[in-house]
Amino acid sequence: MRDAPFAYDGLDRVIHEKARLGLLTSLMAAPKGLAFGDLKQLCGLTDGNLNRHLQVLQEAGFVEIRKGQGKSHSGTRPLTTCHLTPTGRTRFLDYLAVLEQVVRDAAKAAEMAAESAGLPLVARPA
Amino acid sequence: MRDAPFAYDGLDRVIHEKARLGLLTSLMAAPKGLAFGDLKQLCGLTDGNLNRHLQVLQEAGFVEIRKGQGKSHSGTRPLTTCHLTPTGRTRFLDYLAVLEQVVRDAAKAAEMAAESAGLPLVARPA
Repeated sequence: MRDAPFAYDGLDRVIHEKARLGLLTSLMAAPKGLAFGDLKQLCGLTDGNLNRHLQVLQEAGFVEIRKGQGKSHSGTRPLTTCHLTPTGRTRFLDYLAVLEQVVRDAAKAAEMAAESAGLPLVARPA
Repeated sequence: MRDAPFAYDGLDRVIHEKARLGLLTSLMAAPKGLAFGDLKQLCGLTDGNLNRHLQVLQEAGFVEIRKGQGKSHSGTRPLTTCHLTPTGRTRFLDYLAVLEQVVRDAAKAAEMAAESAGLPLVARPA
């Protein structure tokens, strides 16, 4: 296993799953937490998927559920909200550093390959 | 499902898996293909994992195996090599554009949260 520059061991599987990546990004942007309904909408998830992925994140200690705190959009009743924990925040930032490395490695590889083979490089956002 | 900015539908599950992400990055950098042994080493994979993930990528049409082409490092016998297909290359570039969006969204979220809560922002590579 020595010398494996593309092993990307830092891509924690708990975080790397597509839906959980969206959930953590949503929660990172919301220090006051998010209601389940908001999370569902932001991440395009069904109730079943939301519950399943939140459970994985909760068991890893990355998110916590606070009952009866926060306010609904209508402001009339307290809501159960979901929050990123300090551990979740730290681990997500560590993960993002590896993800940035993947993007850099792949972009470099694509440029090298395009140059050497005269292939067109598909335009990507700057 | 409307208005789901963090759904990241473009994160193709065939590509997003950690080991396959490493395999595609390795192959992107090698227009002349790579021998199985090189792929194993670059991605830190066992024989079993390498075969399993290459099969998924092959079935998706993203990589192809060419028998008896290329040369081993010792230069004495032809080797079976693995290559990124044009489809694989295009789809990987599309995926990378979404991955860059994830990194941007998450970095922005982290900065917003750190500012609003006075939290330290863990240093990440520039």
